[in-house]
Amino acid sequence: VLALEAVLPTGEIVRTGSKAVKNVVGYDLTQLLVGSEGTLAVITEITLRLIPKPQAQQTMTAAFSDVTAAVNAVTRLIQMSVVPAAIELVDQDSLDALRAQAGTSLAPTGSGAALIIEVDGEPATAASELAKSERACRDAGALDIRRAADDEARQQIWKLRRDLSGALKRISSIKLNNDVVVPRGRIPELFELVARLRAETGLPIACFGHAGDGNIHVNIMVPDGLDAMAVARAGERQLFEGVVALEGSISGEHGIGFTKAPYLGLELSREQIALMKRVKAAFDPQGILNPGKIFPEND
Amino acid sequence: VLALEAVLPTGEIVRTGSKAVKNVVGYDLTQLLVGSEGTLAVITEITLRLIPKPQAQQTMTAAFSDVTAAVNAVTRLIQMSVVPAAIELVDQDSLDALRAQAGTSLAPTGSGAALIIEVDGEPATAASELAKSERACRDAGALDIRRAADDEARQQIWKLRRDLSGALKRISSIKLNNDVVVPRGRIPELFELVARLRAETGLPIACFGHAGDGNIHVNIMVPDGLDAMAVARAGERQLFEGVVALEGSISGEHGIGFTKAPYLGLELSREQIALMKRVKAAFDPQGILNPGKIFPEND
Repeated sequence: VLALEAVLPTGEIVRTGSKAVKNVVGYDLTQLLVGSEGTLAVITEITLRLIPKPQAQQTMTAAFSDVTAAVNAVTRLIQMSVVPAAIELVDQDSLDALRAQAGTSLAPTGSGAALIIEVDGEPATAASELAKSERACRDAGALDIRRAADDEARQQIWKLRRDLSGALKRISSIKLNNDVVVPRGRIPELFELVARLRAETGLPIACFGHAGDGNIHVNIMVPDGLDAMAVARAGERQLFEGVVALEGSISGEHGIGFTKAPYLGLELSREQIALMKRVKAAFDPQGILNPGKIFPEND
Repeated sequence: VLALEAVLPTGEIVRTGSKAVKNVVGYDLTQLLVGSEGTLAVITEITLRLIPKPQAQQTMTAAFSDVTAAVNAVTRLIQMSVVPAAIELVDQDSLDALRAQAGTSLAPTGSGAALIIEVDGEPATAASELAKSERACRDAGALDIRRAADDEARQQIWKLRRDLSGALKRISSIKLNNDVVVPRGRIPELFELVARLRAETGLPIACFGHAGDGNIHVNIMVPDGLDAMAVARAGERQLFEGVVALEGSISGEHGIGFTKAPYLGLELSREQIALMKRVKAAFDPQGILNPGKIFPEND
C-alpha cells in the first residue's frame, strides 16, 4: 500500500503516502491506517504498488507420516535459503476432513500431514527451487511427493486448500478459528503446544496454514452435540498464552476485532495499550469509529 | 524492521511488533516509529528480518549521450519487468566531477550520463536479467556497455559511486543536497524540471541516485566564490513544488529534519500536519523530543 485517502471522524479528508515508491515526509500514517480495523478513519481510496507477475509457477505436494516430519521439512527449506511463494501445512485432522467432504485429499490415506509448496520466478529459478524443495521434503522423510504437471493440476491443489475451512465446518459447526503466528524457528514448539492442548481438552484441533510465515490457523473444534464451549475457550486462552511465550502473536492476519479484544492484554502491555488508545484519540477524539473493536470495552 | 523497543518521553518503555514475520495485533507502531526522526520516542532496540544473501551478483555500467537516453533505458527496464537490485543514474555534471577528482569516471569522456545496474539472485536468473539489462540499454542507444568481470571490478564501480558526493563537494563547498522522489513513470519529467531549473538559475545542478525507485539526489551547487545562495534557495523551492506537482515527494530517504521543515507544507496539507502533530502529542505531550524537527517551529 503506497498511499491512502481517508476521512477522519472529525470530517477532515487526509491523504497519506504518495505514488512514489519511497516517501519519508512526516510520519508513516499509511501503515498506521492499514490494519487499524476501521477504528481510526474511513479509508476511501487505496493506491497499491503492483509487482510483475512471475514468469513461471511450480507447485508440489508432499505427504508425511506426521506433522513433526512436515515441520522438519519446512525448517530444512528455510535453512537452505529457499524462499517459496507459499509453504502451506495441512495436518491430519484437516486432511481427514477434506477427504470426508471431497472424496480426495492432499495426501494419500494414512498420511499424518501434508505440505503444499509453490515456487515462482524465472523458469530456471522456479525449477531449481522446486528441486531443492523436493530434496528438503525427501530428507525430512516424505512418504510421497507429487509435482503438479500442469496448471489444471495446480488449480486442483489450491481448490482443495480453499475447501479446507468449509470441510472443517461440516464436522463441527462450532470452531474457534485462531490465527496465531510464531517466529519461524519456533514452529515445532507451536505444534508441541497444540498436541498438549489436544490431549488436555480432549477436543479435535485442526491446524493448517502458512508455515513459511510461522502463521498457522489453529481450529479448536467443538463437535456437534458436544457441550464443550467452556473447555474450548480455556484451550484458546492457553493457546494465546503459549504463543506469546514463544515470542509470537495472537493474530498474524485477521486482526483483533470483537472476539479477540478480551485477549489483547495477553500480548500487549498496559503501556502499549494506553499508547495505542492515545493514538486512536488523535484520530477519533470522541471514539465513534468501531467502538469495542481491538480494545476491550470495559478497559 | 520487525520489532522495536522504545522509551517514551513520559518514561514508559514500550515494545512494538514481534519476532514473527506477521503481526496484526493493534496498531502498527513499528512503522510509525521508523522514520519519525526521534520526535516520538527514543528507540533502544531494533529487531530486523534478515533475508538470504543472493547467490550471485552481476554489475554493469552503460554510458549514454545524455540523461534522456539513460532515463529511456530505465523506462525500458521497468517495462520489461526486470527488477534489478540497483539502477543508479549519474548525470554529466556528476561524471565530470568524478573524473576531476579520481582521474577516472563511470563512463568514457564525452558521455552525458551513465547507469550502474546490478542484478542478483540465482546465477541463471542474474545472468538472464543482466542480458535483459544490456538489451534495454542498447535499445535506448547506449554508447558503451561494460560488465564488471569480477568482484574487484564490481567493487571499483561502487567505490566511484560512493565517491560522487565528495567529488561534488570539491567543486562547490556549498551545495543544496536534495533527495526528491517521483513515481517511476515520471522520471523523464523530473529531469525536464531539473533542466529548466539549470537554465533559470544559471547554477550547476548535479543529479545522481536511485533511478529504479524514482529517487534522485538533486544537488543545486553554489560554486565557490559565487554569491548565489538566494538563487539556489529559490531553485530548491521550485524543485520541491515541481516534484509535488509530479505526484512525488520532497524526501525519499533522508527525511525532513531541520532544513526541510519550512517546506513541509508544500507537500502535506494543513489537515495532515495537524493530524501528525496530534500523533506526536500522543507520544510526547510536552514536545520535548527533537523540537524543530519535521514541523516548522513557528507553525
